Amino acid sequence: MSLYARRGVSAQKEEVHAATAGLDAGLYPQAFCKLYPDALGGDDAWVNVMHADGAGTKAILAYLWWRETGDLNVWKGIAQDAVVMNTDDLLCTGIYTNLLYSSSIDRNKATIPGEVIKTLIEGTQEFLETLRSYGCAVTFCGGETADVGDVVRTVAVNGTMAARWPQSKIISNSRIPDAEVIVGFASYGQATYEHEYNSGIGSNGLTSARHDVLSAHYKSFPETFEPGLDEEVVYVGTHRLQDPVAGAPLPAGKLLLSPTRTYLPLMQVLLQEYAGDILGLIHCSGGGQTKCMKYLARPVRIVKDNLFTPPPIFRLVQEGSGADAKEMYQVYNMGCRLELYTTAAKADVFIKAAKSFGIDAQVIGRVEGAAKKSLRIETAGAVLEY
Amino acid sequence: MSLYARRGVSAQKEEVHAATAGLDAGLYPQAFCKLYPDALGGDDAWVNVMHADGAGTKAILAYLWWRETGDLNVWKGIAQDAVVMNTDDLLCTGIYTNLLYSSSIDRNKATIPGEVIKTLIEGTQEFLETLRSYGCAVTFCGGETADVGDVVRTVAVNGTMAARWPQSKIISNSRIPDAEVIVGFASYGQATYEHEYNSGIGSNGLTSARHDVLSAHYKSFPETFEPGLDEEVVYVGTHRLQDPVAGAPLPAGKLLLSPTRTYLPLMQVLLQEYAGDILGLIHCSGGGQTKCMKYLARPVRIVKDNLFTPPPIFRLVQEGSGADAKEMYQVYNMGCRLELYTTAAKADVFIKAAKSFGIDAQVIGRVEGAAKKSLRIETAGAVLEY
Repeated sequence: MSLYARRGVSAQKEEVHAATAGLDAGLYPQAFCKLYPDALGGDDAWVNVMHADGAGTKAILAYLWWRETGDLNVWKGIAQDAVVMNTDDLLCTGIYTNLLYSSSIDRNKATIPGEVIKTLIEGTQEFLETLRSYGCAVTFCGGETADVGDVVRTVAVNGTMAARWPQSKIISNSRIPDAEVIVGFASYGQATYEHEYNSGIGSNGLTSARHDVLSAHYKSFPETFEPGLDEEVVYVGTHRLQDPVAGAPLPAGKLLLSPTRTYLPLMQVLLQEYAGDILGLIHCSGGGQTKCMKYLARPVRIVKDNLFTPPPIFRLVQEGSGADAKEMYQVYNMGCRLELYTTAAKADVFIKAAKSFGIDAQVIGRVEGAAKKSLRIETAGAVLEY
Repeated sequence: MSLYARRGVSAQKEEVHAATAGLDAGLYPQAFCKLYPDALGGDDAWVNVMHADGAGTKAILAYLWWRETGDLNVWKGIAQDAVVMNTDDLLCTGIYTNLLYSSSIDRNKATIPGEVIKTLIEGTQEFLETLRSYGCAVTFCGGETADVGDVVRTVAVNGTMAARWPQSKIISNSRIPDAEVIVGFASYGQATYEHEYNSGIGSNGLTSARHDVLSAHYKSFPETFEPGLDEEVVYVGTHRLQDPVAGAPLPAGKLLLSPTRTYLPLMQVLLQEYAGDILGLIHCSGGGQTKCMKYLARPVRIVKDNLFTPPPIFRLVQEGSGADAKEMYQVYNMGCRLELYTTAAKADVFIKAAKSFGIDAQVIGRVEGAAKKSLRIETAGAVLEY
């Protein structure tokens, strides 16, 4: 039984996919989000989408950091995570503005006081202000905060977005097999619109990362883990949150808590100016570098042989878990959270645009003709086949 | 300290309201849901809304029932609760069709297997089919199911709806003070579109109801309550889930688990045919019979002196909690979950329409001129002033 399974999580979510197999797949089977006919406007030329996601167990890290340091601001990052896990999925369908956002917070009043809720709300408002200043308008429509301490140990921070978009501007991912190259955008560093170094972690794989990096010291917070978990999988790492990490500008806890970077400010420019050259977009969230395999309209071989050197956070997590490279690339973005599929001739345009926003970018791989779908990742010291 | 506070809940949600006080109140300050300019369509004559709510701790009751009986179908009621807590808030603004729905499920894989998720999804689909057959089109846009056992003890079932609606057809509640009478629609009984008797409970006050009705037997399910709660507030009632209840056609557990009745099939008719006579609509959810006080555009006195005799579920809860009538009417709907404000001359039209759907209805009270806002409830043996 894998460490994931023993912790009650699944990187591939097989069970959830089985449970939801009967749902309408939407108008475009390969689109990154499910798109539906325009119930909101009754116009055949438009589509509707709703999208739900959240900060997941990253909120537990924020809880521990806040308890240890008293720093409420860490919750603003959780608010950002809940927004970006929605926006950056949606931008993979080409949608970048005129969005509605509603938050859904389930809290345990015994552990999460009103000041935390207030900070989450303020953090959402501030982050949406930043997006707005980059041309991405998201109306914050309020939401629901429920006191459900019998259900939730600490807090669940989720959000849902709704949008309406012209079909002619949708990125359906159906043309990924026609692409020649994959441009990767770094998940780490410091974009021009970020206030500090971003570790690149995103909001996926955080249950594992937390337990594998943090030490048994945190067992003294029983409200932060399922009591039925095997002792051997609970806080088995060696770090305290404020411990420095070699080669990284932030302590371990801050690396784990880096708010998920949004690519919206960059992508709203690219989607407006170069839509015709964008043959596909993949947000490497759950599923990490293997995510693209779910969105192939026909058999091709994806080869990624020039990914970024993974930033320190992923070394930290791997050292803690002892996971092999194959597993790491299957769970984490490993430094590249957005892939753009295009022609060889156009790659430079996208790379230059990204760099103008302080986001590292490069051709990380290519698409090859093949009889069946496969993925090859070549990285320092390992060749991984999926 | 009240029983509510000792259980980490608050009927009035003061702390949440303080935390969210800085949010945009929307275009209509008295509207039952916040309404925003039409970002989705860019049309000044239309508004947008998003709304989030969920089944809350009612999911714990479903969990106990399922564990005790093996009956998965109880989860379909939870799916309905999450939908109706959204639709029936939205219908109070006049919105009844062309909605989008997205679900957000946080589960603990150790307690909630895939078959429960599958039943929740199927229950949602089936319930939306029923609504559709009554002219209320809701597109199920999928959603997110997250494995977050370190956050959630069992399962949190939430949903979010989005809509776009012509301003001219919005019920803004600004005319409640002009109304003469209040028509109340029963929350209990069996509507023509319901499969069995509905207790009337809705999805509010369920933390208290569960602990006050159910016996200490259920302490053997520690995953169903916050471990820090005082022993004296955990499962202090006298009932097992399958115990019969005098005067009620269903056992205690089924009374508590009655899926929240939707008024949509009735209201889609009334909103289309008699919109001009509907001066206000109040969904008596959290806040119970006092909910209306939040939506008064100017000082009036609301007098409710002819409410329904509360159905058995509320007697069961009150016997368990020992709460006084004032508190009961402040937390629970007490048999009337929807109020329609209108003129004396028009009341009969609404009452007859309700009865044609098998929903009991009557004039439950009136609106009187006054210098300050107040509410008087006269019920058997008690006069309650708020």
